[in-house]
Amino acid sequence: MARPLQRLVGRLPPPSLLALLYLVLVLLGTGLLMLPAAQAVPVRLNEAFFTSASAVTVTGLIVVDPGTSFTIFGQAVIAVLIQLGGLGLMTFAALLLVTLGISIGMPQRIIMGEELGTGGFRNLLRLARLILMVAVVAEVAGTALLMLVFVPEMGWATGTWSALFHAVSAFNNAGFSLFDDSLVRHGSEPLVLLPIAALFIIGGIGFVVLGEIWQKRAWSKLSLHSKLMLTGTGALLLVSWALIGALEWGNPATLGAMEGSGDRLLAAFFQSATPRTAGFNALDTAALTDASTVLVMGLMFVGGGPTSTAGGIKVTTALVLILATRAFFLRHDTLSAFGRSIGLDEVMKVMALATISVGMVFLAWFVLAAGHEGEMFDLLFEVVSAFGTVGLSRGATADLDIIGQVIVACIMFLGRVGPLTLGFFLATRSSPRIGYPRGQIYLG
Amino acid sequence: MARPLQRLVGRLPPPSLLALLYLVLVLLGTGLLMLPAAQAVPVRLNEAFFTSASAVTVTGLIVVDPGTSFTIFGQAVIAVLIQLGGLGLMTFAALLLVTLGISIGMPQRIIMGEELGTGGFRNLLRLARLILMVAVVAEVAGTALLMLVFVPEMGWATGTWSALFHAVSAFNNAGFSLFDDSLVRHGSEPLVLLPIAALFIIGGIGFVVLGEIWQKRAWSKLSLHSKLMLTGTGALLLVSWALIGALEWGNPATLGAMEGSGDRLLAAFFQSATPRTAGFNALDTAALTDASTVLVMGLMFVGGGPTSTAGGIKVTTALVLILATRAFFLRHDTLSAFGRSIGLDEVMKVMALATISVGMVFLAWFVLAAGHEGEMFDLLFEVVSAFGTVGLSRGATADLDIIGQVIVACIMFLGRVGPLTLGFFLATRSSPRIGYPRGQIYLG
Ligand SMILES: [K+]
Ligand SMILES: [K+]
Repeated sequence: MARPLQRLVGRLPPPSLLALLYLVLVLLGTGLLMLPAAQAVPVRLNEAFFTSASAVTVTGLIVVDPGTSFTIFGQAVIAVLIQLGGLGLMTFAALLLVTLGISIGMPQRIIMGEELGTGGFRNLLRLARLILMVAVVAEVAGTALLMLVFVPEMGWATGTWSALFHAVSAFNNAGFSLFDDSLVRHGSEPLVLLPIAALFIIGGIGFVVLGEIWQKRAWSKLSLHSKLMLTGTGALLLVSWALIGALEWGNPATLGAMEGSGDRLLAAFFQSATPRTAGFNALDTAALTDASTVLVMGLMFVGGGPTSTAGGIKVTTALVLILATRAFFLRHDTLSAFGRSIGLDEVMKVMALATISVGMVFLAWFVLAAGHEGEMFDLLFEVVSAFGTVGLSRGATADLDIIGQVIVACIMFLGRVGPLTLGFFLATRSSPRIGYPRGQIYLG
Repeated sequence: MARPLQRLVGRLPPPSLLALLYLVLVLLGTGLLMLPAAQAVPVRLNEAFFTSASAVTVTGLIVVDPGTSFTIFGQAVIAVLIQLGGLGLMTFAALLLVTLGISIGMPQRIIMGEELGTGGFRNLLRLARLILMVAVVAEVAGTALLMLVFVPEMGWATGTWSALFHAVSAFNNAGFSLFDDSLVRHGSEPLVLLPIAALFIIGGIGFVVLGEIWQKRAWSKLSLHSKLMLTGTGALLLVSWALIGALEWGNPATLGAMEGSGDRLLAAFFQSATPRTAGFNALDTAALTDASTVLVMGLMFVGGGPTSTAGGIKVTTALVLILATRAFFLRHDTLSAFGRSIGLDEVMKVMALATISVGMVFLAWFVLAAGHEGEMFDLLFEVVSAFGTVGLSRGATADLDIIGQVIVACIMFLGRVGPLTLGFFLATRSSPRIGYPRGQIYLG
């Protein structure tokens, strides 16, 4: 049983394998969601397909409300799709780096015990088990914390299920919620917002960073990649927290409606963290000021970290773009950060990914505009949200016809599988990395 | 008299000199447009400033209608500002390349007779005279052709002045028109649209290409730069002609209002050519379909050729981005086109320029959104139009308050002076080019 599978795994190029796997998952999920047992109200085929695609790509854009349209069984199908979609990508990305001989911290120490190339399938299982363990620990802890609010609110059964569902959705940066207003009703509840934010930040920073922190426990020992990810994530959080706080403070439809400064600061923090792939919202996305909306689009495009459940071009990609541009103005011949140089080949990868990404968003916007009525600003927002697998919406996705839904589903799919595929293409063209003195930036 | 000036020219870094020159021109123009002799109706200081900045940067965005707000003297001031702004940049860009020892075709043959570095100021005069000659020939021919329509329509005096003004505005890709509907009233008149399109295409393809065509007269002898510019311009014209034709054919507010297919094809061609910096419009820009508008934004961002009167990131920049991305997917270690390789340093230049440009447009959009009410799609359109010094408008610029006008004026200024400044920064960091076997891509 395992041998033909192993042979298949070995023969297909990894990116095609990943795309195929995701496609199979989407179709399987569609089938399950079409079962009468899954539907609380009649759900059409295209709606089930869109929901399945959105869950597998951990995007969270919806055309039907998951909490009221699906039964507990249907909701469980969605949760499993999210878990497989999120962890599948994380596992695949980590495995890819290991196969290429690139250090990824903790898991490497365990996996490198075996010879590379011979035990590929066994390594995959080991790595998957390890990643699953991290996920289970995080999700169980998150579920317990969320139960503190949800159980008193909804009773044991519904409360526990809600807590589990939202913990899974948060760790995998899926953004699916069982509440029809996402987290707006809990918008002043730190015991809901903070565990969820912690889960999606941990899930979105990347396995490489988590592994290194676990293994090295000292800033100076961290790799360039982890240092860039941690400082970049911190800087993005702080700057966008301040900007969104300032821009929304007096907006009566968002922060302005809240009474205390503490509530506003909490909601502003959550709103600044969620666009980088999580996609939950504690404020009404369509009610944000125009300037905040532009900022949110920028954050959604950047996304989280490589080898994580997050999407977007990734924080490291954005940082290398900025560092490279800065180096040019300073007329430096080499790029460096934290005392490590960044090679020209890294810059070229980053450029290729950024060009493709901007081109893809622009093309998708053009195609949606050509075929659909709608506010152009909202359509661009939905396109960027789908590309970054974020799931924040100003409402345009729900109004799309079937063709529009298929286009958005394709963008979600490309946004999820694309950067890693590109990362694979670019990684394999480089020379082997073992013993390299230069820092590496991962793309996927 | 010439000696202190020469010393000043020699001492300032060229980009600062250029920026200073433009700033002085803008202020001088503002002063002249504030003279009672220049104003047909009362014009405010901020309106005169915006008009002057728009003319010097050859953008063509307006807050007051130049045809009715200014006297013939005022209009002449605008025409002179356009001429100085357009030719000044062309001259500066060409001189920069010559100084750096980079071949620019015809003018090089003449200028290289003198020792480089010693006769800088005399070279500048010579080159300026040469460029002025090309401009005068093109503008006189354009004026004569436009007179065929304008003189019967408006009489000798007004017709001749209108023909001259529009020829100057077209060759310099300024897009200023004396008619309050730009060229919409002549939207079916090939004798107006074709000479104007010819002028702005010639003015926007770049002095390097014009010089090489003049000097070499054979495709095979052209440099990589000229081949890329000519094929890129041709491809962009054809593709956008077809797309705009298809998207607008049935739009009753644009092509759909025209009777014959010939008229529609002509207007579609003009509409596909004008966004790459010219900025005249023969169709109502705000009435274009959403998809066409997205396409127009893309074309405005790309712009024309280096060492020309055009703006944008330039056709060559866009092509190198595409070629580099393609090379990565094909796992080529080197970039090439037309049998010439393109160096990594060219790719890095292009990346820096593209990153800065996207960042600038995004930031300007954010700032305008933070301070101003208005349709976000329209604001983005105006920002891209200002960045590319195009001047097409969906009406948002006219509605801006003074702060908004100053922001847009700054974007026009940065859009005009920025890429060349960047080109200078990047060009001077490379090693000398004489005798290099590799093809060169110019940025400015
Ligand atoms: K998401
Ligand atoms: K223009």
